Amino acid sequence: MSKAESTLLDMGITLPEAPKPVAAYLPVRIAGGLAFVSGQIPMRDGVLLASGPVPSSVSPDDAATAARCCAINALAALREALGGDLDRITGVLRVGVFVASDVDFHGQPAIADAVSTLLVEVFGEAGRHARAAVGSVSLPLGATVEVEMVLELGG
Amino acid sequence: MSKAESTLLDMGITLPEAPKPVAAYLPVRIAGGLAFVSGQIPMRDGVLLASGPVPSSVSPDDAATAARCCAINALAALREALGGDLDRITGVLRVGVFVASDVDFHGQPAIADAVSTLLVEVFGEAGRHARAAVGSVSLPLGATVEVEMVLELGG
Amino acid sequence: MSKAESTLLDMGITLPEAPKPVAAYLPVRIAGGLAFVSGQIPMRDGVLLASGPVPSSVSPDDAATAARCCAINALAALREALGGDLDRITGVLRVGVFVASDVDFHGQPAIADAVSTLLVEVFGEAGRHARAAVGSVSLPLGATVEVEMVLELGG
Repeated sequence: MSKAESTLLDMGITLPEAPKPVAAYLPVRIAGGLAFVSGQIPMRDGVLLASGPVPSSVSPDDAATAARCCAINALAALREALGGDLDRITGVLRVGVFVASDVDFHGQPAIADAVSTLLVEVFGEAGRHARAAVGSVSLPLGATVEVEMVLELGG
Repeated sequence: MSKAESTLLDMGITLPEAPKPVAAYLPVRIAGGLAFVSGQIPMRDGVLLASGPVPSSVSPDDAATAARCCAINALAALREALGGDLDRITGVLRVGVFVASDVDFHGQPAIADAVSTLLVEVFGEAGRHARAAVGSVSLPLGATVEVEMVLELGG
Repeated sequence: MSKAESTLLDMGITLPEAPKPVAAYLPVRIAGGLAFVSGQIPMRDGVLLASGPVPSSVSPDDAATAARCCAINALAALREALGGDLDRITGVLRVGVFVASDVDFHGQPAIADAVSTLLVEVFGEAGRHARAAVGSVSLPLGATVEVEMVLELGG
């Protein structure tokens, strides 16, 4: 088991099966030492963890939990794409976080922090990344959060 | 003629002249074996194919047609940037699809599929990519869809 | 002083201290000859220059000024990340501009031009880039504009 996955287990997180893309694309595209992870939504065991905008439909706290679920799904997709070895990840470069938001909601950074914090817990300093967090009028399947990533691979 | 462009012709698609950027930027920026394509809108022969949000102004089907037009414009921009040779493209890495959406519209993936499907038809397995599809409250010139891409170049 | 910073001074622009991230991420992530700059908002001297959507809360002209401020903050973050030497930047590759927009506002490109124009003034041809400008329903802290970048580094 990779060191990263072992760290996840210590944190009480068992990676799920890699989520299937909801359409005609790849969960992870690898090229030239980079891995591009498709936008992940907070799907767990086939159920959407949170749907609708913050805060009218979902509280900021629940949206943060959903964002963390997106990050876990991204790691699950990466594990599958990397033949089980998350330790090939040498750095997280960029994270994009889209938060379904009411017009007057401006707390996207705190929600995106759930993603950033998890990545640093799993990968240490190598997990520190650039980030763009923005509000979105609506997201696929009604998801409250969507998270995409670009990572650096070694080996 | 490049193999990719010949495939497009077989599909009944003649690439238009490369669209002019609507502002002070490049249609395609090439560096280090990567090509970044600027956000393309569904402009055809100088006319916007679809404007306004889905579904109140544009049906999902018409938005998918517009998304496909964005992808064709991206290929036209790439052809010009690559001196006519689309076969220098060795892979599509990431596609970003913004869909002007009403608050309760969640079908962005099906619209983005029109882009993904076209790219796989043109480039085969190399055309398979990571993707983020999100809703947007409004897009440049009122466009219904905007599509950007990152590709890998060889040669 | 770097040539780029000297050009900025000639333009009457003194780079501020690098903005602190509003959450758990890096202002700039460098890897493999690329620099990813986190989404910058128009914060100047600790005050948000423009908040709320265009045009109901902020005029397009004021939004363009705010976008320029975001670009200056990005350069300040880059200067710090590059040990003071902006001349390590050999190219601007992609700029993402999110504009808080009312549903019927479609002038995002003109606002994003304030960013693109500044980058070309500072870096010349190397500053020309691909770009995606989109509307957003709401942005962090209520900002009117958020700007992120990917750049190429030499040396």
